[in-house]
Amino acid sequence: MLGTVFVVGLIAFAASSIYFYFTGKQENGLNTAFLVSFVTLVSYVLMWQGEFTVTTDAGQPIFVTRWLFYGLSCTLLMLEIAQLKGITGGELAQLIYLTAIVMGTGFLAARDLSAVRWAHFVISSIAYILLVAKVLPAGGGAGRWTHSYIFFGWTVFPIVFLLAPTGVGLLGAGIANLLYLALDIYTKIVFNVQMARAE
Amino acid sequence: MLGTVFVVGLIAFAASSIYFYFTGKQENGLNTAFLVSFVTLVSYVLMWQGEFTVTTDAGQPIFVTRWLFYGLSCTLLMLEIAQLKGITGGELAQLIYLTAIVMGTGFLAARDLSAVRWAHFVISSIAYILLVAKVLPAGGGAGRWTHSYIFFGWTVFPIVFLLAPTGVGLLGAGIANLLYLALDIYTKIVFNVQMARAE
Amino acid sequence: MLGTVFVVGLIAFAASSIYFYFTGKQENGLNTAFLVSFVTLVSYVLMWQGEFTVTTDAGQPIFVTRWLFYGLSCTLLMLEIAQLKGITGGELAQLIYLTAIVMGTGFLAARDLSAVRWAHFVISSIAYILLVAKVLPAGGGAGRWTHSYIFFGWTVFPIVFLLAPTGVGLLGAGIANLLYLALDIYTKIVFNVQMARAE
Repeated sequence: MLGTVFVVGLIAFAASSIYFYFTGKQENGLNTAFLVSFVTLVSYVLMWQGEFTVTTDAGQPIFVTRWLFYGLSCTLLMLEIAQLKGITGGELAQLIYLTAIVMGTGFLAARDLSAVRWAHFVISSIAYILLVAKVLPAGGGAGRWTHSYIFFGWTVFPIVFLLAPTGVGLLGAGIANLLYLALDIYTKIVFNVQMARAE
Repeated sequence: MLGTVFVVGLIAFAASSIYFYFTGKQENGLNTAFLVSFVTLVSYVLMWQGEFTVTTDAGQPIFVTRWLFYGLSCTLLMLEIAQLKGITGGELAQLIYLTAIVMGTGFLAARDLSAVRWAHFVISSIAYILLVAKVLPAGGGAGRWTHSYIFFGWTVFPIVFLLAPTGVGLLGAGIANLLYLALDIYTKIVFNVQMARAE
Repeated sequence: MLGTVFVVGLIAFAASSIYFYFTGKQENGLNTAFLVSFVTLVSYVLMWQGEFTVTTDAGQPIFVTRWLFYGLSCTLLMLEIAQLKGITGGELAQLIYLTAIVMGTGFLAARDLSAVRWAHFVISSIAYILLVAKVLPAGGGAGRWTHSYIFFGWTVFPIVFLLAPTGVGLLGAGIANLLYLALDIYTKIVFNVQMARAE
């Protein structure tokens, strides 16, 4: 099942890379929709290859590079949301930096099988809460439609993390990575299609 | 002793993260004092966990991730000093890049137990000297008070590095990490408290 | 032979670092020619040390850090070419990001000995083609002389990669690294000397 999930992800993000390259918004020449899909394609190739994994006591594999690539793609997504909400300068830098901390500590929590991973998870969650508390009120009504992506897309990631082999292990690696694939498609493809329409 | 040093560091930077989050300057919305403390908190959790270490012939552990996190925190500190001294644009980019090279080669020197580490140490020191030679004369009188932090704070780091297990090994890992903790508190907490008063 | 190649590279880039530090253009205070040479010097020290290698079935070593350092130096070179051609803002960010993807996936292709490395190689090549397709037409006549560096310098890198132990293995590690050294000198030293004259 895991192999199938990664191949589907690989094909989906190869297709969306091509789609966004030709249709994506070219505001200032920076095609973030394309770059997000392209970076996620590389992430799925790497997980399909299956090299950078740790294995839990229950024998479940964790694909630790996922969060490093989220660090690249989600800073770009944050940039898109910030532009929509008119967040610039130092405030934008703060959001990008917090996003990088969320994913960097997420990576540390994912690759750690000891109880210390909970310390990383707590720090990651605090950074995430600070991030969302900055993003949601900003921009008044502008970019309000992005909130549903943040609530139903972004916030489900740490819940899957918690239930998956990275956390308490209620979900197996197969289901967890299938859920991540659905979330990736929702927050990186569906989101960017709506972003293009919103302009 | 090592465990105690890291737990004290962990608590100190958790506390300073909270303190700076609520009181830190929000110039342009970028709270560098908070981000520096928060990144250093992650660094101490990682060292407390004790996973990313190499052990010298004398049996002393070296915590190699310290310098990677300095790469993140010290580029932010450099940004603060540059703003105070009115350094912007390409000149600021040069300072940030040099700071990253100092810490990147510091990391390479720390994780290498062979004689080649001295080559990394020399390159790191050259980058540091070029950096200080750019920062000190800049801005005329503005930000002159930061010089004592650079002399007594920053410059003591490579001296500890030299005497610690990373260098000639005159100091043990316990004393070395205790000195680093004192330097971290001086350059990242005390400095930012004075920075807030200076405005 | 490999040791000699790396020592020659080390000396060449130590010398060019000193040369560009004192003569390099200081536009906005950012001395990219110096930083490119300095970062490449660190890269050669690391390859001379010979630690971060993987060995192919044919017993040939691959020095995987090369591409990580290209990620640092080539983004700076791209910045130089972009300035010459008047590329700024989002379009410049797109080029820098694509350059980082080319080198990041180049690193993944280099350290992977399985057939999956061809997937990384294809993605890297696509990113490179998109990059060149953006850079060449930009700026009208301005910076036209850089095209010969892109054609004879940059594009030969993936060809060496293909023929070297990283690819089909027609060339040995000695010849491959000698060719890379020649290309490094051409694209990072000769290029920057001409860049200084072009101003």
